[in-house]
Amino acid sequence: MEETRYGLRVDLPIPYATAVDRATDALKQEGFGVLTSIDVRQTLKQKLDRDFRPYVILGACNPVLADRALHAELEIGVLLPCNVVVYEREPGTSSVVAMAPLPAMGLVGNPDVAAVAKEADARLRAALDRLERGEAMPVGADRGSSS
Amino acid sequence: MEETRYGLRVDLPIPYATAVDRATDALKQEGFGVLTSIDVRQTLKQKLDRDFRPYVILGACNPVLADRALHAELEIGVLLPCNVVVYEREPGTSSVVAMAPLPAMGLVGNPDVAAVAKEADARLRAALDRLERGEAMPVGADRGSSS
Repeated sequence: MEETRYGLRVDLPIPYATAVDRATDALKQEGFGVLTSIDVRQTLKQKLDRDFRPYVILGACNPVLADRALHAELEIGVLLPCNVVVYEREPGTSSVVAMAPLPAMGLVGNPDVAAVAKEADARLRAALDRLERGEAMPVGADRGSSS
Repeated sequence: MEETRYGLRVDLPIPYATAVDRATDALKQEGFGVLTSIDVRQTLKQKLDRDFRPYVILGACNPVLADRALHAELEIGVLLPCNVVVYEREPGTSSVVAMAPLPAMGLVGNPDVAAVAKEADARLRAALDRLERGEAMPVGADRGSSS
């Protein structure tokens, strides 16, 4: 896993569509549901007639953590949900990048929010680790064979 | 308009549902389409059976600015779209809070992204100013009478 100034990234040797499915599943295993999905390529094509690589922004929300954050700081919603981007590097390889919660939530300056951010950070790292190890199966895949 | 550490806020003497419509319209007038909408109250009720005030997170995107930001910095998607929250203060009064683009995009440390953030900031302030002055009409309202 690589850390950037504002994100946590894993590069995966799998096609884009598979990466989207596996990222969704890995997030689910850490309690994050995908509430929103923006197909960036489609949006830029429709609105501007511009070509772009396959790229999606998933809005991932762990309801327990979101509830705690919102009760600690009512306006924290402007920094929710936690975005996870999946894009094609080149055909057959993909990257998954999660917003790093600590720098983003650090803008807020509220210790209760910082505690929630720390837990979100740990869970997102666990999801990305699982993806990197190839443990997350696509949603709907047969898990029986691995048990 | 009030500035917080990470948001730009206006308080409005109008009910929540009207505030959501007017905020959507004011954003549209500054070139931001609402691509996603998370009904926070409904989500917390469904997932956790918790009660919460009327509260929505709108994902606002100005395609021209998003395109520029993505070409300046591929992974900027984790900080897009720009979130705008609308919530009920008490019945009949509402607040609209936009994510302040400058601190969030400042995490990135890329001057080309900073230039886009500056333009997004100006446009969001214009949208909030318009809301505060009561100039934004609900989407679909008759505008003929004011001309």
